Amino acid sequence: MIKKIINKTITDIKGVYATGIHCGLKFKKKDLAFIYVPEAAASAGVFTRNKFCASCVTFTKKVLKKNVLKAVIMNSGNANAGTGELGTKNTKHMAKITADMLGINASEVGVASTGIIGKQLPMDVLEAGIKKVLANPYVVDGSAAAEAILTTDTCLKQAFFETKIDGKRVVVAGISKGSGMLAPNMATTLTYLVTNANLEQKFLQAALADAINDTYNMTSVDTDTSTNDMALLISTKEDGVVIKTNKDKDVFLALLTEACTDLCKMIATDGEGATKLIEVNVVGAANGTDARKIAMNVVDSPLVKTAIHGEDPNWGRVIAAAGKSPEVKLNPDKFDLYFGDVQILAKGMPVAYDDFALKEQLKNNKVFITLELNLGSATAKAWGCDLTKGYIDINTKYN
Amino acid sequence: MIKKIINKTITDIKGVYATGIHCGLKFKKKDLAFIYVPEAAASAGVFTRNKFCASCVTFTKKVLKKNVLKAVIMNSGNANAGTGELGTKNTKHMAKITADMLGINASEVGVASTGIIGKQLPMDVLEAGIKKVLANPYVVDGSAAAEAILTTDTCLKQAFFETKIDGKRVVVAGISKGSGMLAPNMATTLTYLVTNANLEQKFLQAALADAINDTYNMTSVDTDTSTNDMALLISTKEDGVVIKTNKDKDVFLALLTEACTDLCKMIATDGEGATKLIEVNVVGAANGTDARKIAMNVVDSPLVKTAIHGEDPNWGRVIAAAGKSPEVKLNPDKFDLYFGDVQILAKGMPVAYDDFALKEQLKNNKVFITLELNLGSATAKAWGCDLTKGYIDINTKYN
Repeated sequence: MIKKIINKTITDIKGVYATGIHCGLKFKKKDLAFIYVPEAAASAGVFTRNKFCASCVTFTKKVLKKNVLKAVIMNSGNANAGTGELGTKNTKHMAKITADMLGINASEVGVASTGIIGKQLPMDVLEAGIKKVLANPYVVDGSAAAEAILTTDTCLKQAFFETKIDGKRVVVAGISKGSGMLAPNMATTLTYLVTNANLEQKFLQAALADAINDTYNMTSVDTDTSTNDMALLISTKEDGVVIKTNKDKDVFLALLTEACTDLCKMIATDGEGATKLIEVNVVGAANGTDARKIAMNVVDSPLVKTAIHGEDPNWGRVIAAAGKSPEVKLNPDKFDLYFGDVQILAKGMPVAYDDFALKEQLKNNKVFITLELNLGSATAKAWGCDLTKGYIDINTKYN
Repeated sequence: MIKKIINKTITDIKGVYATGIHCGLKFKKKDLAFIYVPEAAASAGVFTRNKFCASCVTFTKKVLKKNVLKAVIMNSGNANAGTGELGTKNTKHMAKITADMLGINASEVGVASTGIIGKQLPMDVLEAGIKKVLANPYVVDGSAAAEAILTTDTCLKQAFFETKIDGKRVVVAGISKGSGMLAPNMATTLTYLVTNANLEQKFLQAALADAINDTYNMTSVDTDTSTNDMALLISTKEDGVVIKTNKDKDVFLALLTEACTDLCKMIATDGEGATKLIEVNVVGAANGTDARKIAMNVVDSPLVKTAIHGEDPNWGRVIAAAGKSPEVKLNPDKFDLYFGDVQILAKGMPVAYDDFALKEQLKNNKVFITLELNLGSATAKAWGCDLTKGYIDINTKYN
């Protein structure tokens, strides 16, 4: 059984150190954090596929290919993207200072930046900050790190999930940020996960990719893809917590997916300007690709998002969004549609639903839409949020 | 030379009759129109590819396959989509009443509906309306028809373009509607074009598809695809205006494309809540598919749209949007970026641009963004609009 433990964070796993401070990239808020796992046994990463990916993405990818990641240095307030050669140099310098402070190699350090694109990092400010925050690296304050990676987020995103495998307690914990420029194409946010399980590198990478695929890659706020997204997973290799059999690996993957799902729901709920979480559930699709595409089409539709914001059960917009991709298999005459548990369409025709009950579904701060295609057995879930004037406010005045 | 003639509309082409009235689907505004071309010589159509396309789309497609379209009956205020078998029956009935009034065959009549999805048409109201508007079909008031097809549009969209081919005056005129639920995947709106040129059916269809591909299919307000989109083109076959050679066909295609471009710019400018037209010009792409994809990614990006609404030259969002599709060829180190004539990036690096001049570009009600990929010779243009609180207002309270 997988249990969610509230009020715990990444540093509640033994051997994981992290904190965050204000160094001066932002006006007042925390803007610099690290995670340090001195005895890291294995590490994995999933990255944005944006062609204009930042140098920190390229750099951290390389680290993961060669070494186990022992530390990550992370700043918010400036993405260090679209900054050319100087930007690349600055990323390397961030890794170097971090490594020097920790007495490890720069090729064991991941770098992550988030914030405005196209501005050079003020390296004097950042260098002083890194030296300050790492003066004592053995701090266990994961929440401060979770705070320091935020941008337009309005709340911390932390998850801590545990289960038992072979009588041993296995834990996955994570912190995440993300509120806007948030679309499914790899990691979609900055996410740092830690586990105490002893797993081989190759499986760790495969498990992370799998979990991200069903969670972060199915979460969208505004269809815009960040240049800086990454999700990293580090294993601390606690004594005795060994996962080797396929059955145990399945349990671990379920644990990891559960943690990611929880973080993704927090992200969608805290989407820029959002007042409602939207969960779209596609069932009975001919294949997984179609199920995912349809779920994302609905969750990404500005007209669905605004209707839900207006608590208007305008289900015509849901079917228009579901049908927009000509390449997917979808038979309008077999299609069932539900808002929450209120059925609206049966085999493509409106049923005599209770108007009051339908409207009640939309008054909740979580809106569930289920599309039953009756074509096969594939399913997909996607998470998003409503589109509000708050989103316009935040993004017309971001700079 | 192609000339744009202002204050002229479809009924300024000889043999084209059209008007619009209020019949009662909407509260007060015009909601029913027809176009009648008794001597129609050829006709063509391009339709939405939405899987939930309305019965009027299926019906009109069939008409075009078998016959030349002589009349189109069009209502706004109700899309007659998601309405099952009764909806299909009602579409056929609309064609039948129209045909009876005009003394033609129902299989020569196109039907188009637009408005809310999922509600049955009040056929008594509509039948009375059709009989009323067609009591005298020889009315030349294209503007009234242009008005009656509007939904959330705030202005009429009419175009009239002419040129000379072999000394003869060749004309293309059109009316169009579209403001929201507007994304490129076939026609994207309701559009009715008429030409006096005598063209073979096959070429007319190919020319329409070509013109739509570079205009309506590159226009987007909100990425949502309508269930009811169609673009129809009817030829009146004026005496002597014969187009046969390939050279003349090219001139006709240019004329048709110009008319469609003009209508598309009107549509994007009048996007729901829009205050600015955005034109994205991609040049130097490796191939046409990439050029189109990148142009659409930028014009569809909510973050680009909100930045432009805020007159904020946050060009980082433009490159993030341009780079979001991993499958396109794009080299960040070769990439040049311009807002209007102000260059921002050269070979991927910010240049020392005039901040004041850049901000001035964003104060215009037309914002031009050029992306020069320096990879090949393919180009594409896309049109869209800013994203504002007006869009949220319109779409939270549509029903």
